[in-house]
Amino acid sequence: MLSLLDLRDRIDSGRLTPQGAVSLAREAIADREPEIGAIVRLDPGSRVPEEGPLAGIAVGVKDIIDTADLPTEMGSPIYAGWQPRADAPVVARLRRLGAVPLAKTTTTAFAFLDPTATRNPRNLGHTPGGSSAGSAAAVAAGMVPLALGTQTGGSVIRPAAFCGVVGVKPSFRLLPTVGVKCFSWALDTVGLFAARVGDAARALALMADRPGIDLAAGDPGLPRIGLLRQDFCAPPAPEALAALERAAAALERSGARVQDLALPPVFAEAWARHPLIQDYESAQALAWEYDHHREALPPLLRAHLDAAQGAGAAEYDSARRVARQARRSLKDVFGEEGVDVILTLSAPGPAPESLASTGDARFNRLWTLMGVPCVTVPVETTAAGLPLGVQVIARFGDDGRALAAARLVERAIG
Amino acid sequence: MLSLLDLRDRIDSGRLTPQGAVSLAREAIADREPEIGAIVRLDPGSRVPEEGPLAGIAVGVKDIIDTADLPTEMGSPIYAGWQPRADAPVVARLRRLGAVPLAKTTTTAFAFLDPTATRNPRNLGHTPGGSSAGSAAAVAAGMVPLALGTQTGGSVIRPAAFCGVVGVKPSFRLLPTVGVKCFSWALDTVGLFAARVGDAARALALMADRPGIDLAAGDPGLPRIGLLRQDFCAPPAPEALAALERAAAALERSGARVQDLALPPVFAEAWARHPLIQDYESAQALAWEYDHHREALPPLLRAHLDAAQGAGAAEYDSARRVARQARRSLKDVFGEEGVDVILTLSAPGPAPESLASTGDARFNRLWTLMGVPCVTVPVETTAAGLPLGVQVIARFGDDGRALAAARLVERAIG
Repeated sequence: MLSLLDLRDRIDSGRLTPQGAVSLAREAIADREPEIGAIVRLDPGSRVPEEGPLAGIAVGVKDIIDTADLPTEMGSPIYAGWQPRADAPVVARLRRLGAVPLAKTTTTAFAFLDPTATRNPRNLGHTPGGSSAGSAAAVAAGMVPLALGTQTGGSVIRPAAFCGVVGVKPSFRLLPTVGVKCFSWALDTVGLFAARVGDAARALALMADRPGIDLAAGDPGLPRIGLLRQDFCAPPAPEALAALERAAAALERSGARVQDLALPPVFAEAWARHPLIQDYESAQALAWEYDHHREALPPLLRAHLDAAQGAGAAEYDSARRVARQARRSLKDVFGEEGVDVILTLSAPGPAPESLASTGDARFNRLWTLMGVPCVTVPVETTAAGLPLGVQVIARFGDDGRALAAARLVERAIG
Repeated sequence: MLSLLDLRDRIDSGRLTPQGAVSLAREAIADREPEIGAIVRLDPGSRVPEEGPLAGIAVGVKDIIDTADLPTEMGSPIYAGWQPRADAPVVARLRRLGAVPLAKTTTTAFAFLDPTATRNPRNLGHTPGGSSAGSAAAVAAGMVPLALGTQTGGSVIRPAAFCGVVGVKPSFRLLPTVGVKCFSWALDTVGLFAARVGDAARALALMADRPGIDLAAGDPGLPRIGLLRQDFCAPPAPEALAALERAAAALERSGARVQDLALPPVFAEAWARHPLIQDYESAQALAWEYDHHREALPPLLRAHLDAAQGAGAAEYDSARRVARQARRSLKDVFGEEGVDVILTLSAPGPAPESLASTGDARFNRLWTLMGVPCVTVPVETTAAGLPLGVQVIARFGDDGRALAAARLVERAIG
């Protein structure tokens, strides 16, 4: 994989030019893209900025995020050739930092569940996950050192775990969703994919203009870690649970305090209500597409929107109240009397075999609803060559702590 | 003015067809638009739905709200002729209800402060206010019975008050801002303009799919009203304060309990921090426009964005914390121990003379930041023929109560 920090070190020390770094990405794309299919469109050859903390960094941008110079097709024929007027603010920010938005990456249609044709670079017969399929696969295949995705249920953490890369779903609205096709405005969150935790932390700190997020800004010491199995949802594959427990044991060996964590019942209630919020908002967000192009929607999304037409405001309002109660309760889990970070599953298991499903977001959706920062780190590889990740979660606004703890995991494992 | 309820009554009783109701709007536009200048583009003649609770209702749509069949130009040459792909969800919802989005209405560029050429229908030498200038003026001039606007500081309540119409800024995200050009994602709120409170309540209840918002759903009784002068900002014109006090006296005469209300200091602090949030977010939301088309931005917006480039994340995060504290404190102001609604100024005075300024949002911006429902009701007219309004505010999610109290004001005055 291409490491953002490694490329930047080589550029800073004069061993590589920004142009040269972007050429590495172009060469990797030429080499790997034919078998992976992670890219919708490639920048034909924009100028590579010489200056900026991300100069030389080629970025993959999920194709529901507006770009002024490349079409944005939402993974749907309804938007075939659609050219937005402006860059989304996250893309404009990348350009200001010197990065090159090099490729639009595949997305499931409107970031829902209908799979893309993208293959998992770790095992081509398996899904890379979704909905940010192309961004996860492009980083995993070494095509780009950084990619943008979005998560409404588990669309960053899950594909990152399936592809064996680091994924970050930051605190809600740390990165603006302006210019990003909406599925659910209370849930949609822009996230990042990178090779290693340090790469993701540097990128997020720069994009969010909060240097404290970067691990280099200080050593947070050894965190108190709450080990959470999320028993409120169906159990994971035994190998995923075993990987989580081995990661916890490795953290203990490296000096962290790990304790089993059980959550009050309001979290199970909030988890169960995530779909109510998503249903209600997506029925509105995609009303035009549904009313005018229902037949052009792929089957899972069409069936979802058919059902979501009946989503009621009363159930939605009630679900939001439960979510607010859980967010308040989460403050008690973290902090003085509780734990610094939660360690839990990133996904129910490795990437499913076949490209017919993008996998399951059940270990992610509570945290998207809570709006708290989540980081997935690859920790093991199955006999089939498929990665398993673990997820680190911190309190709202504490993205730097989640990343610091994720780097501890990386070190304890590595 | 065209009253939504009146038109719907005539349609329901067979005295008017939906087509006929829309024709009334078209005739009024032909008559008044040349001197008002409220409209950017007119629908050339879409089919008028026969069915739906808003069949026959012609709607003005602020030209930062996406429409699939009419360009959306953001009040800026940067978006000249720009044709979005999809209707914004609020527009799609109107169509489902049977309404006809008949006209795109003038907006200040990107809904900031640079004035439009639109005139105040009550006195053509005065501003209609901004940024939703055309929507307020179109309703006031009797061109349409309903119009959509947006408020980030005071862009619904202020122009409604200046033009002598009812304006509603609902609870934050009651109406989705998807497909609405973003200025500040924590503040932007879609609102409505209508002739009378009952018209606005019917429209909001239907658009938000919450029948309880409509006054017809039940008599809330006589509310406890807190009279608030907002002393944390510069004082209003004496005639505006006198109108507020006369409205309070009229309410007392009709049986409501009115008490003077003073707010804890955290509200002044939150009020003072609204611009920090708006600056920080607008610099990001309009990054592409600033980076690529700075010279095409109008002077006030250009100067604002020049200054906002220096807005820091630390000040922004701190401002959001103060806003959260104030939101919590506001729960104590309302409810069991407090008041049901707040009665306060809609604007510092009547519409300023000349079209060179859109007026001042200082009596609005705290409430936009709090995310609570606000309704302005016209209560008096100055010697120059300019309306004065008062503003009714309820707790978050209690839009129906704000509207019910606003109707009490309307009755007490009328």
